Amino acid sequence: MKLPAISASILLLVFQVILIVIYAVAVDYSKPVASTDITNFYPVFQDVNVMIFIGFGFLMTFLKKYGYSAVGYNLLISAVTIQWSMVLTSWLANAANKADSPGKVKLSVTNLITADFNAGTVLITFGAVLGKTSRFQLVVIAIVETVFYGVNEMLLVHYLKVTDIGGSMIIHMFGAYFGLAVAFALRKDELRDGENAKEASNVNSDLFSMIGTVFLWMYWPSFNGVLLGPGLMQSRAFINTYISLAACCVSAFVVSSMVDPNRKLNMVHVQNATLAGGVAVGAAANLIIHPWGAMLVGSLAGIISTLGYQYIQPFLLRSINLHDTCGVHNLHGLPAIFSGILATIASAVADESDYGADLYAIWPARLKTGDNRSKSNQAGYQFLAVVVTLAMSIVGGLITGFIVSLLDNPSEDQWFDDEDFWEVPALDFEAKGVVVNHASSHVGPMEMRITTTSVGGETGNNNRA
Amino acid sequence: MKLPAISASILLLVFQVILIVIYAVAVDYSKPVASTDITNFYPVFQDVNVMIFIGFGFLMTFLKKYGYSAVGYNLLISAVTIQWSMVLTSWLANAANKADSPGKVKLSVTNLITADFNAGTVLITFGAVLGKTSRFQLVVIAIVETVFYGVNEMLLVHYLKVTDIGGSMIIHMFGAYFGLAVAFALRKDELRDGENAKEASNVNSDLFSMIGTVFLWMYWPSFNGVLLGPGLMQSRAFINTYISLAACCVSAFVVSSMVDPNRKLNMVHVQNATLAGGVAVGAAANLIIHPWGAMLVGSLAGIISTLGYQYIQPFLLRSINLHDTCGVHNLHGLPAIFSGILATIASAVADESDYGADLYAIWPARLKTGDNRSKSNQAGYQFLAVVVTLAMSIVGGLITGFIVSLLDNPSEDQWFDDEDFWEVPALDFEAKGVVVNHASSHVGPMEMRITTTSVGGETGNNNRA
Amino acid sequence: MKLPAISASILLLVFQVILIVIYAVAVDYSKPVASTDITNFYPVFQDVNVMIFIGFGFLMTFLKKYGYSAVGYNLLISAVTIQWSMVLTSWLANAANKADSPGKVKLSVTNLITADFNAGTVLITFGAVLGKTSRFQLVVIAIVETVFYGVNEMLLVHYLKVTDIGGSMIIHMFGAYFGLAVAFALRKDELRDGENAKEASNVNSDLFSMIGTVFLWMYWPSFNGVLLGPGLMQSRAFINTYISLAACCVSAFVVSSMVDPNRKLNMVHVQNATLAGGVAVGAAANLIIHPWGAMLVGSLAGIISTLGYQYIQPFLLRSINLHDTCGVHNLHGLPAIFSGILATIASAVADESDYGADLYAIWPARLKTGDNRSKSNQAGYQFLAVVVTLAMSIVGGLITGFIVSLLDNPSEDQWFDDEDFWEVPALDFEAKGVVVNHASSHVGPMEMRITTTSVGGETGNNNRA
Repeated sequence: MKLPAISASILLLVFQVILIVIYAVAVDYSKPVASTDITNFYPVFQDVNVMIFIGFGFLMTFLKKYGYSAVGYNLLISAVTIQWSMVLTSWLANAANKADSPGKVKLSVTNLITADFNAGTVLITFGAVLGKTSRFQLVVIAIVETVFYGVNEMLLVHYLKVTDIGGSMIIHMFGAYFGLAVAFALRKDELRDGENAKEASNVNSDLFSMIGTVFLWMYWPSFNGVLLGPGLMQSRAFINTYISLAACCVSAFVVSSMVDPNRKLNMVHVQNATLAGGVAVGAAANLIIHPWGAMLVGSLAGIISTLGYQYIQPFLLRSINLHDTCGVHNLHGLPAIFSGILATIASAVADESDYGADLYAIWPARLKTGDNRSKSNQAGYQFLAVVVTLAMSIVGGLITGFIVSLLDNPSEDQWFDDEDFWEVPALDFEAKGVVVNHASSHVGPMEMRITTTSVGGETGNNNRA
Repeated sequence: MKLPAISASILLLVFQVILIVIYAVAVDYSKPVASTDITNFYPVFQDVNVMIFIGFGFLMTFLKKYGYSAVGYNLLISAVTIQWSMVLTSWLANAANKADSPGKVKLSVTNLITADFNAGTVLITFGAVLGKTSRFQLVVIAIVETVFYGVNEMLLVHYLKVTDIGGSMIIHMFGAYFGLAVAFALRKDELRDGENAKEASNVNSDLFSMIGTVFLWMYWPSFNGVLLGPGLMQSRAFINTYISLAACCVSAFVVSSMVDPNRKLNMVHVQNATLAGGVAVGAAANLIIHPWGAMLVGSLAGIISTLGYQYIQPFLLRSINLHDTCGVHNLHGLPAIFSGILATIASAVADESDYGADLYAIWPARLKTGDNRSKSNQAGYQFLAVVVTLAMSIVGGLITGFIVSLLDNPSEDQWFDDEDFWEVPALDFEAKGVVVNHASSHVGPMEMRITTTSVGGETGNNNRA
Repeated sequence: MKLPAISASILLLVFQVILIVIYAVAVDYSKPVASTDITNFYPVFQDVNVMIFIGFGFLMTFLKKYGYSAVGYNLLISAVTIQWSMVLTSWLANAANKADSPGKVKLSVTNLITADFNAGTVLITFGAVLGKTSRFQLVVIAIVETVFYGVNEMLLVHYLKVTDIGGSMIIHMFGAYFGLAVAFALRKDELRDGENAKEASNVNSDLFSMIGTVFLWMYWPSFNGVLLGPGLMQSRAFINTYISLAACCVSAFVVSSMVDPNRKLNMVHVQNATLAGGVAVGAAANLIIHPWGAMLVGSLAGIISTLGYQYIQPFLLRSINLHDTCGVHNLHGLPAIFSGILATIASAVADESDYGADLYAIWPARLKTGDNRSKSNQAGYQFLAVVVTLAMSIVGGLITGFIVSLLDNPSEDQWFDDEDFWEVPALDFEAKGVVVNHASSHVGPMEMRITTTSVGGETGNNNRA
């Protein structure tokens, strides 16, 4: 396994040098900076930052033998993505805006937010392939996906001119279906039976995962509202998201115990489906959907997402061998489609009588001096954005998945397992599922480890003994 | 155990539908919203939000076999409470203010804060009955307690017109004594000996709990000051709380090792008593108690709380069979009484010469054009608020406890144990206290599990073997 | 072990009483307070607060048997330090500024920030001696180090008049070399072989540690920028730090796997070296080093820090018996020297043409009406600040280390082990490395514990059996 690790390192090193050169040529600070440029955005940005690095990072630690990779690779691929995104998405925006110097990038606090959004997209994709891809493959995915992401964002914002304040389409739908397409391209028959004993949690890994869940849950209003800046629309975004999440949490708990054969709650649902309300309300978070609307949306999202985990995910695995480690389809994919439809409906009924001048801030194409779109016209574009994003993400993911399938693929016994890629504490094997009798009490740690492994334990070798 | 889970689900489902209907009829967004309405409140609100969901949620994970329930139910009952509270407490405030449309609710960021406060109160109550109540009972408690909470808050704010900026009476005292009353109503002889082996922590559960402690500790200044908005009084509230907590932390450590028979520190004290300074200074956080006063208050709170854990809690268990799982009496109850007395004293000496115009913002009843109360008069009302809150919480708690005692009670072997209510990783039993000899190395996981249970291990069955 | 615990308690108690007296005599609230005094500083302060208490606290929980002490003592010594610092550093600043009432202290939100910085410095020192010092020794170190820290800060800010916005010299360099000097003064031959089996992590302790890492990593821009207040310079500090950390993260991962004999990643590097970019950019975070400069600095810092962990730290242990538990030399010491040199270079090329009026806010000594320093002159002072800080911290650390070496030293078998200082859950030994056969299933917990210990397990006693 020496080659792959070095390969990832060399790729990272070369790409980092390229980034330094690009930044030296093209990137500088934006100025002037007003006091409110920071107070309006920075505290809310930091909430989003926590969602990306603690939220996603710990949410993915639920695999009991893959915690180092989960939180470590989360940090690494985000670090690569944010540096790459800050320059690339700015270039694309400059080009779309026909800026005088399309190659020049001026950084402000807002760029930190959009870079984090891009990282979040890549991390959703990471969730679909968690435990089944090498570090080298993940870095390639991050670099390539950022290009597709940037292009799709540009299409939606600058050409389709749709609203998607919480990034339900741009971030969640794109990241999820891109990830599912990569996972499909990398599909393996060995995953189909779902009996890999390492693909499981234990009590501690589940609680680490809940740290991620709760931070994502709490700060999701910030995610959906951060780009608006303070004012009436941001207030609406915060309130809609807060209510949607609360309602979603309740319905996820309700459905979780109802669908369980033993009528017990399932941590997978609690860790994930409770968050679907944040995705589902996202594209319409700043729209006038009313508090009861947000509550209804959240309630339905919790139901859809939990049913997705319970029924759709196993069905996709059995029927088309689509293995989705974190179930990103249920947390991000389906709720994002719901959100796209919601934004379509909300756009179809939006009038100046309700929104005032905000109407044109939300949908600039409705300006008479602009594209002069009607509300049904705008709704059509909103729906088109769903279709475009699905197409871009699936095609982009299939291409990317094909590329990385040619690179170093971890072998079956390396899946969901840190051991071949991280220095793992040697004695930890004893801490889990030790099975030794008194007679062997004289053996040293190495022997004990062998004994342990030979008789099984938490690693589940018993299944095959 | 199938029926109870479904019962909780049906109740949650019905209540969620009721909420959607209520919101459709009565709730909308507040407008207009100024930029400062958000920048002044939202970042500090998010600190409070972290306290409610991470702080309380992880603080309660200290029970080694009850972590899923601790953090999961914390999320669930908060999600129910905040939706219910946003409409109910607004109705009560509208009624007290004789609003034109008492049934109409206009939501702003401030409502998110007060909803979180209500959730915090219910979570303190949860702490008293942690591990001994079913999900169904907890949801009933949350719904009913919110009514009593709202009424008590209205009495204190609108009728007694007292100051309690950090909610020491409204939140901590109320939540603690309500919870103790519920626990008393549900008391069981089997808890009296304190020898339930599952009612214990392990190293990991203690560290998860410390995540909760430290977030509560850090953000407590935000809790005590958030409603003030930026200015001199908020600055005072932040500084007083910060100093009180630091002093409390020191005295909790000092007393913890002094009262221990082995002169060792006790994690129960570190997890909880270090926070008592935030409660104790709460009702007077914005008052001119001077930094040394805050320091003295914090120091005493740490002493009181630690002594409470060490001596008063076991005494109440032995003498009146009052079992308080998290010791909320020591962290919230006693320090809140201290805080009520502190606010009484500070009110008794408050003059316009010290406070300027802030005097009437803090105590509007002292306005000559208002109730024209004297300072000793106001002090009397402050003390009355302690008495009223104690009465409301204890009576409300006893009534609620009686109601839920008629519902499904978990059996003794279900106490402090996730297993009958959550899908728990099967192999985890092996990871904890595995006791198997070589000869049995051929058995599969299920057999091992049975073996494990039969011979004891971390579950403590050895005690009874 | 009864005496030491009481000694620490008595010292803490006496010092707390002294603090209350000092505060009663000398400390009050600052006023008036403008709304922006809070909104400009408080949210960013809370980020720093999380870094100090969650960041440092959990980063140090990586030792598998020392988690209670790591996060508990982190809280305790910070609580002592912040109370002591708020008054002491204000006195020193008053004296340097020739204030009318040098003994009077007026507290505002800014004091909470600088108190946290002081605590951070003491915690870096704590990292160097983690697991090898008693609570009594740690409290003495905190109290004494705060004095040396305050004097050094005063020298740099008021006499050398250097810029160090992120505290790379004042906080990181000082804390690291002070800690290394204390560690050197307390050196023990038994640590030299690095074979103490308790000085190790396990999977859970490593993940707890990552909570600290990620919070430090996310909020480091706040650390480096908080004191500036919102505006162009703060924006630059945020952006430079964000980029430097991202680049540092990448290079730390690259080097980590390259230097590993098995080409695997090492959690020690991921937990620590990924953060070196925050330190390295610190002293120049608000300077015009350009985004590519920040990226280069971060990349180099990740390399330096990882190489430090891999090669320099073992070399220092072997050659001069300098045992640095957390490797603070690699995370704080070396990157801080790099940062000092970086600030020297940036000062040497700083002109009004680039900085405008900010030049004199950053370097007041360059004012013609002030010290009228040239840029090379200022650069000389910047370099002198490195030398002074190194001298102050090493001398102060040696003196402090000598003092505490006379106090109660934990014995070798107490190192890296909570057990003699905390009430540790009895049954936890069974949860880790249980080695018992069926025949012994009748034994109670105490016997099992003895059995466990006698045959070894995670505690590593096997090494010596």
